[in-house]
Amino acid sequence: MRPTFALPPGFLGGCAVTSGSADFCIAGIPFDLGTTNRSGTRDGPHAVRRASRMLADGANPVGWGDPGAMSVADVGDFTLALGDIAGSLDLIERQAAGFAHLLTIGGDHTVTLALLRALCKRTGPVGMVHFDAHVDTWPDNFGQPLAHGSPFFHAIEEGLVDPRRMVQVGIRSPMPKAVHDWTIARGVTIIGAEQVHLDGPAAVAERIRAVVGAQAAYLSFDIDAIDPGQAPGTGTPEIGGLFTWQVMAILRRLDGVRFAGMDVVEVAPAYDVAEITALAAATIVWQYLTLHAAGKS
Amino acid sequence: MRPTFALPPGFLGGCAVTSGSADFCIAGIPFDLGTTNRSGTRDGPHAVRRASRMLADGANPVGWGDPGAMSVADVGDFTLALGDIAGSLDLIERQAAGFAHLLTIGGDHTVTLALLRALCKRTGPVGMVHFDAHVDTWPDNFGQPLAHGSPFFHAIEEGLVDPRRMVQVGIRSPMPKAVHDWTIARGVTIIGAEQVHLDGPAAVAERIRAVVGAQAAYLSFDIDAIDPGQAPGTGTPEIGGLFTWQVMAILRRLDGVRFAGMDVVEVAPAYDVAEITALAAATIVWQYLTLHAAGKS
Amino acid sequence: MRPTFALPPGFLGGCAVTSGSADFCIAGIPFDLGTTNRSGTRDGPHAVRRASRMLADGANPVGWGDPGAMSVADVGDFTLALGDIAGSLDLIERQAAGFAHLLTIGGDHTVTLALLRALCKRTGPVGMVHFDAHVDTWPDNFGQPLAHGSPFFHAIEEGLVDPRRMVQVGIRSPMPKAVHDWTIARGVTIIGAEQVHLDGPAAVAERIRAVVGAQAAYLSFDIDAIDPGQAPGTGTPEIGGLFTWQVMAILRRLDGVRFAGMDVVEVAPAYDVAEITALAAATIVWQYLTLHAAGKS
Amino acid sequence: MRPTFALPPGFLGGCAVTSGSADFCIAGIPFDLGTTNRSGTRDGPHAVRRASRMLADGANPVGWGDPGAMSVADVGDFTLALGDIAGSLDLIERQAAGFAHLLTIGGDHTVTLALLRALCKRTGPVGMVHFDAHVDTWPDNFGQPLAHGSPFFHAIEEGLVDPRRMVQVGIRSPMPKAVHDWTIARGVTIIGAEQVHLDGPAAVAERIRAVVGAQAAYLSFDIDAIDPGQAPGTGTPEIGGLFTWQVMAILRRLDGVRFAGMDVVEVAPAYDVAEITALAAATIVWQYLTLHAAGKS
Amino acid sequence: MRPTFALPPGFLGGCAVTSGSADFCIAGIPFDLGTTNRSGTRDGPHAVRRASRMLADGANPVGWGDPGAMSVADVGDFTLALGDIAGSLDLIERQAAGFAHLLTIGGDHTVTLALLRALCKRTGPVGMVHFDAHVDTWPDNFGQPLAHGSPFFHAIEEGLVDPRRMVQVGIRSPMPKAVHDWTIARGVTIIGAEQVHLDGPAAVAERIRAVVGAQAAYLSFDIDAIDPGQAPGTGTPEIGGLFTWQVMAILRRLDGVRFAGMDVVEVAPAYDVAEITALAAATIVWQYLTLHAAGKS
Amino acid sequence: MRPTFALPPGFLGGCAVTSGSADFCIAGIPFDLGTTNRSGTRDGPHAVRRASRMLADGANPVGWGDPGAMSVADVGDFTLALGDIAGSLDLIERQAAGFAHLLTIGGDHTVTLALLRALCKRTGPVGMVHFDAHVDTWPDNFGQPLAHGSPFFHAIEEGLVDPRRMVQVGIRSPMPKAVHDWTIARGVTIIGAEQVHLDGPAAVAERIRAVVGAQAAYLSFDIDAIDPGQAPGTGTPEIGGLFTWQVMAILRRLDGVRFAGMDVVEVAPAYDVAEITALAAATIVWQYLTLHAAGKS
Repeated sequence: MRPTFALPPGFLGGCAVTSGSADFCIAGIPFDLGTTNRSGTRDGPHAVRRASRMLADGANPVGWGDPGAMSVADVGDFTLALGDIAGSLDLIERQAAGFAHLLTIGGDHTVTLALLRALCKRTGPVGMVHFDAHVDTWPDNFGQPLAHGSPFFHAIEEGLVDPRRMVQVGIRSPMPKAVHDWTIARGVTIIGAEQVHLDGPAAVAERIRAVVGAQAAYLSFDIDAIDPGQAPGTGTPEIGGLFTWQVMAILRRLDGVRFAGMDVVEVAPAYDVAEITALAAATIVWQYLTLHAAGKS
Repeated sequence: MRPTFALPPGFLGGCAVTSGSADFCIAGIPFDLGTTNRSGTRDGPHAVRRASRMLADGANPVGWGDPGAMSVADVGDFTLALGDIAGSLDLIERQAAGFAHLLTIGGDHTVTLALLRALCKRTGPVGMVHFDAHVDTWPDNFGQPLAHGSPFFHAIEEGLVDPRRMVQVGIRSPMPKAVHDWTIARGVTIIGAEQVHLDGPAAVAERIRAVVGAQAAYLSFDIDAIDPGQAPGTGTPEIGGLFTWQVMAILRRLDGVRFAGMDVVEVAPAYDVAEITALAAATIVWQYLTLHAAGKS
Repeated sequence: MRPTFALPPGFLGGCAVTSGSADFCIAGIPFDLGTTNRSGTRDGPHAVRRASRMLADGANPVGWGDPGAMSVADVGDFTLALGDIAGSLDLIERQAAGFAHLLTIGGDHTVTLALLRALCKRTGPVGMVHFDAHVDTWPDNFGQPLAHGSPFFHAIEEGLVDPRRMVQVGIRSPMPKAVHDWTIARGVTIIGAEQVHLDGPAAVAERIRAVVGAQAAYLSFDIDAIDPGQAPGTGTPEIGGLFTWQVMAILRRLDGVRFAGMDVVEVAPAYDVAEITALAAATIVWQYLTLHAAGKS
Repeated sequence: MRPTFALPPGFLGGCAVTSGSADFCIAGIPFDLGTTNRSGTRDGPHAVRRASRMLADGANPVGWGDPGAMSVADVGDFTLALGDIAGSLDLIERQAAGFAHLLTIGGDHTVTLALLRALCKRTGPVGMVHFDAHVDTWPDNFGQPLAHGSPFFHAIEEGLVDPRRMVQVGIRSPMPKAVHDWTIARGVTIIGAEQVHLDGPAAVAERIRAVVGAQAAYLSFDIDAIDPGQAPGTGTPEIGGLFTWQVMAILRRLDGVRFAGMDVVEVAPAYDVAEITALAAATIVWQYLTLHAAGKS
Repeated sequence: MRPTFALPPGFLGGCAVTSGSADFCIAGIPFDLGTTNRSGTRDGPHAVRRASRMLADGANPVGWGDPGAMSVADVGDFTLALGDIAGSLDLIERQAAGFAHLLTIGGDHTVTLALLRALCKRTGPVGMVHFDAHVDTWPDNFGQPLAHGSPFFHAIEEGLVDPRRMVQVGIRSPMPKAVHDWTIARGVTIIGAEQVHLDGPAAVAERIRAVVGAQAAYLSFDIDAIDPGQAPGTGTPEIGGLFTWQVMAILRRLDGVRFAGMDVVEVAPAYDVAEITALAAATIVWQYLTLHAAGKS
Repeated sequence: MRPTFALPPGFLGGCAVTSGSADFCIAGIPFDLGTTNRSGTRDGPHAVRRASRMLADGANPVGWGDPGAMSVADVGDFTLALGDIAGSLDLIERQAAGFAHLLTIGGDHTVTLALLRALCKRTGPVGMVHFDAHVDTWPDNFGQPLAHGSPFFHAIEEGLVDPRRMVQVGIRSPMPKAVHDWTIARGVTIIGAEQVHLDGPAAVAERIRAVVGAQAAYLSFDIDAIDPGQAPGTGTPEIGGLFTWQVMAILRRLDGVRFAGMDVVEVAPAYDVAEITALAAATIVWQYLTLHAAGKS
């Protein structure tokens, strides 16, 4: 029985590289080539795993789901092509293909495009629950089409996501009006951060469920959806963000949604303090896992 | 008239070691042997005193209680037995025995057990207002019975606390269901962090008062009750925590409670940023003091 | 088209020293001689400019005001008299006099007195929207009349501000009751931080508008109005502060107010983490600017 | 072929828990109950492993020893008794017993006593190369006999070390003269830090070899031997310390010594900056390993 | 006359974007796509400029060269292709072509290849003074040929550098023996870090001059040549590095060398403390400039 | 017997405010109005006292001087005039007058002028051992005559120091040649930092003794004499500085000098890491004290 500080380095204190045949597999993606402001998300997977030790002992007091009683494996980090965005996306897509239910940690938001390409081959276009400060539907990023402001532009264009079953939560960054209008015109629902603060988590969860519906969905969580005071360790912070209690309260209320996978992205540990950003990311993955415990969705 | 930055190093800018015969005595307990994740609470008392200089000048704008007009003394730090948990608890108990009304700062939560042993000899079983992210009623801590996850298990077992007059506020960590059920079965009231966010401070304060009743009570404040974004300097952080405005709003509304003592624990300065965690702890002590100003409870 | 991280060092990624004939001019004031606790606000202007790069690309999603479509210039930093408070205030006043609409960043709150002296010559006594943790109406600061706890004592005494059209938002620090009573007796409206949390931003904005009325007003924003968890980089933090989402939600609702200038003060980067305090300050300036976009007030 | 930043979390980028039958086994000891100033060495093993990734690719340019071509295994962390010094030392001794050649990382210096008890059963009294700022021969530590200032007092008293074959390098802390005199009287050789600076590494290495001789020896490296400017991440820093280039230059010249094991202790990551202390510790282990490469001692 | 803390944001307190027709032009290159461990050198140019304010006032006390009396311009940052190494190198080469004597700050070491391609068109193969912890002659970087471990492999292969007139100073990292041998076989002189410590700066400078000779040469300074204790803000630190006093003492003794340009690379501010790494980089550029003052080389 | 971490907050773990009639009195001066770059030296005294706890237990291993056996008192901090340089200097001078042998910690270098004014009334012009990166003989500081670049200009002009008995050690900053020439012309001896590195501490100590001679002298130690890698916590760092081992080795060799007082200045804790700068300052005071132990000078 090891104290929290002495747990092995895998997610929730497991070994970092274990079998890929578990019901739920967790992989790290140490990628940051698509960042447009501060970089360093390549170190995200390591930090999120380290922070997750706080969650290794016991069950979720809301619903008593217990990852320790589930089939969960940390399969280590995906290999990438150093300095090559397109090459890395291809590698991510290929590695993601093999898993029944994949949860990924870290890397910048560019990686979601590759993950959706892999997932969509099995599921067809998915519904999308997208937490973020930014809509990430820019057609390009200062000239680069494949970077962290564009995954959902491409995902919608490539038919990986059904935009009418897509909802964005926490949006608040400056943006060109054309980017906003394109997104709305595709049918995407945007719930700005101020709206979350004013409406409360129950109303937001209800709206998310209404948008996403009963078919297969995906959770893409950009850590900058959370306020910089609670998640400073990220590259493109925006003030006025969501609070972690709201995020948890919303996620807990999504237990009817048929999630087929998730990612948490944009954790940049060099800007974190006392692991709080990494802990937020780890807890989001843990909350997602416990939603899928026996007796749950 | 010294500027804030030039105040002496005792609590609220007094001298660090003064008479123990004041109405309210403040002692530091530099203890961290009972920590199960990050250590360093031994440096808490120093940091809380240093941060308290911000509160040295003037009265509480809510109610105008003024510690400067009260009989308050900082009696310095308790002596401890290096590397020896049980020996240190004995020393704390003995040193705590001599004070009319004791407020302690710093150390990990293990110390509360010794403080209650000392207090209870005078008061009998006390009511308990316990702010925390964790219930701290584990029967042991990875094999160690005397550590920071267990003070209230022992306090209840030893009859130091009346569990039906005990309320826990801010609870949200993972835990074995058995620990939760044992606590509830003893009669303890648990108000989870999400509930505080949803109900607001006035309702929570009302519920606390109802549970604690009119007899002697104790305030034990684990700084990790507060959200890691506002209190990163602690060893076992959990996201989704209370906000300091809520804590202050609740405490201000407890002026009818007959408090016989208090502690604030688990401040680990090595993980703090810009003294914000230490300042939160200092302000909680200051708020407690001003509750007891003349014309108050 | 430069990525966010590669923008020039002026506000919103412009050049740092450009023409002073723009409609809106931004100046830095690297001053910290009036601080009473932690110093270092001399580095505030640099940090706020650097952080503002996150806001350079696109329009405000609330109302679509776009600083890029306005006449805005960063005129660099004001010159000051090293080690000389009164001399520096004279220099600030003289330099501020030449601008049609001036927004200043950084320095401690002492500078607001000089800025109001300059402004008032053109406008007469102004209404005041003052965000702060402290009332800043101390008659002196540990013996020094010209320091950061006194700008509004002097501004009221000198007739620069109409106290019946002055509102203070976020107040919560300890203070002598006499300071509070003097302020109220002058006619100033105080909205404590807890009140903001309980009432919500729409009610607060409504009250601000009622106090300030239709004549010329000024926005003075002390960054310590915001909670230390979201703005640790300041010298005199107080817990229980405003959240940035509330600040933004309030400011957005002040679009009918006839603002003639603004400052954001007390950013001390040495205590900041991951630029979050500087980003908050930058975003407040940006929000103020977009309030003044065409089609707006 | 993984980039440095994407290596698995074991020492030199291996898996953290692998076979214990390798020629050289590396174990972590997350222990800090014996610290007398700043704590936190429990997190040392994790940090040293993480920092070691910089050394994973290639051979030592001095001598071309290559750990990748040797039989090396990271066997993970030892289990400990939470909050119990004596109990933990027993556990360490028992776990250390099984390895042919053991290298341990992290924990405070107390652990060396247990490691020597285990080793000495196989080798008899060993020679000792001890790098440290402190002699660590205090008979007790503020009343506690088993703590980080006393391992060599006990090791000499218990006959685990031959004091005439023991050399201490880097000593410079304040100490009671009686502690110094006891150490010298036992026959220990002390080379103060200033002496290392004045004499240079070749002369120091020569003297170490002369003292230690041809029989079995042990290397115990307290990271505070190194100057705080190069190794801030430790609990009891002393200025005027050794430079890492000197440490490396000395170690490289010890290739004739018959080392039977080593430890590097006192890395406290909470006080580190940019991993430099952890990297120093990792590099010392790596240098020790490459001393034992084929064609070497 | 502005105090140091209030200088404009260009190098040595000048404006950031000024004329490119000066005798010496300074450009920033915010590039980090070629990093193999910690990233973040994209923020290097900003940090080096900010730190250079310490050097704005006065002359070099060794030789009295004064950049303020020279024709020096900070031309701002080069534009780059986001997420595209080869595209960025093309852009750098094109922008570098226009300057008489170019000094660049920041970015990872990959950029030197582009700078040499531009320079060599005017000068032919240059001599090279290369400070670094690593030889940077790897043929590829975990599969990527164009990254920060390979600039000199390509520079030698492309004939941009004359390897017999190339000297590497400070080398100490692990490396495959084949990389070392390839480098030596080309004729490059390697002076390891330990050699610098043992020989002293005068001898090293003499050797550098002997290798480089009287023809055109280039200075490429990787900040990781300096010890991590003095330059923690970099991505691939190695202990045992050069001290800044040695670097300065060597550079001062190179006043006969015919330098045609220089770069300082690999400053990663997210890992820096108190700007010391950025200050080291700025001082190296300043020392290089003062070598070229009137009456000098 | 308190562990190091639990010592009271005065210098060497004594009480912070005790009798002023001791043989050696230590006072803090929390002043930073004279700083020209980064501020924050107002927090120096607190940090140096806190760091000094590492030196509380035992004697100096070089010479066995033991402050615990001497008559030493920490008299707390001097009062100052907030925001008023000249007024503060007057207050410092008056408070310093009453002590037999005064050692002061913290504040910026401006304070030395006031301390010398007080001392000189008793001793007449003193010899001066001045460690610094800067000569501090500027006639003014960006227009301000009384600031931290000018104490020795005034001290020489006012006849407080005998410039022919004054030696400056560690000088290396850029400066106007006129400032340098004025200093030399007065008769001051300058030993540049590079010279210390090349000559070694014994030769430097010999030269200091020769310059200072047998009459009363004063030690003024600007912490930026030390290299930024070992003392980052200061406002005007310069690379290439002295190492702490050299400083200690020099000071130990000055035991024949008739020191009448000392100060250590320019510690700015906001820029420190892991207390290493504060520890360096504390150790310098401790070394000075032990020079004066019985059986010593």
